[in-house]
Amino acid sequence: MAVEEVPWLSDREQQVWRRWLRVQTELPAALGRALHQDSQLSMQDFETLVWLSEADEQRLRISALADEMHWERSRLSHHLRRMACRGLVAKEDCADDGRGSYVRLTAEGRAALDAAAPGHVRAVRSLFLEGMTTEELDLLGTFLERVLGRAEG
Amino acid sequence: MAVEEVPWLSDREQQVWRRWLRVQTELPAALGRALHQDSQLSMQDFETLVWLSEADEQRLRISALADEMHWERSRLSHHLRRMACRGLVAKEDCADDGRGSYVRLTAEGRAALDAAAPGHVRAVRSLFLEGMTTEELDLLGTFLERVLGRAEG
Repeated sequence: MAVEEVPWLSDREQQVWRRWLRVQTELPAALGRALHQDSQLSMQDFETLVWLSEADEQRLRISALADEMHWERSRLSHHLRRMACRGLVAKEDCADDGRGSYVRLTAEGRAALDAAAPGHVRAVRSLFLEGMTTEELDLLGTFLERVLGRAEG
Repeated sequence: MAVEEVPWLSDREQQVWRRWLRVQTELPAALGRALHQDSQLSMQDFETLVWLSEADEQRLRISALADEMHWERSRLSHHLRRMACRGLVAKEDCADDGRGSYVRLTAEGRAALDAAAPGHVRAVRSLFLEGMTTEELDLLGTFLERVLGRAEG
């Protein structure tokens, strides 16, 4: 498609898109503040713990976790080192495989996740879900699925 | 509210929320790839240029820009230094005010933004807006406004 053929966004589209961009920044910030109020975890810690808690044997290759989270490998390694110092995760070096090491959830990490989860769910409810009808939830679900199919495609 | 009173998310709510989280990661990644294909800008560069282009006299105090973008001040300073090396922005030290310096958009930065914008709009259209009815756009707009009011409140 030639550049000249690109139609600019209408006022309404522009408004919704900008709102989307702001929510994309403000919602994680608000969830992070709520999380911080009743736990020692950041959103990044929480996300890491959730990924590990749902993995087979509660462990993942660090490179795979970086892919899932869309983080630079070096940033994740740095973050995991700090989480390991706090006892939330543990690194496991894989002797028979040079391709990289694993990280696993510790009992302490599991306990921290379990303690933080109810407050986090409450925040997700009060910020995001509250006031949505079933129909709106379905529409939003369909919309998000469509966007996801395109963004990942 | 006591922790025991927190109702867990229903399967449907959980599905929509998880989808939201994935879109929040995948959509910026896809937009970033599209931007990178037809410009030398990252999404962070682009966002910075947009903020400056819309500011009075196309300049902002660095601390104000950091607040708007929800970035750590040090991360933004580092980023602006790299953008300044490429001529996209320029730092202005404010002699009569010890509270910090300003950054302004350069002609080069404006040109880079103008060159990248049509492709970016095309990507926003094809990934996000395409296929939405006016009614769906309105619903999404209302939903986002509600979330924003809570997250910023």
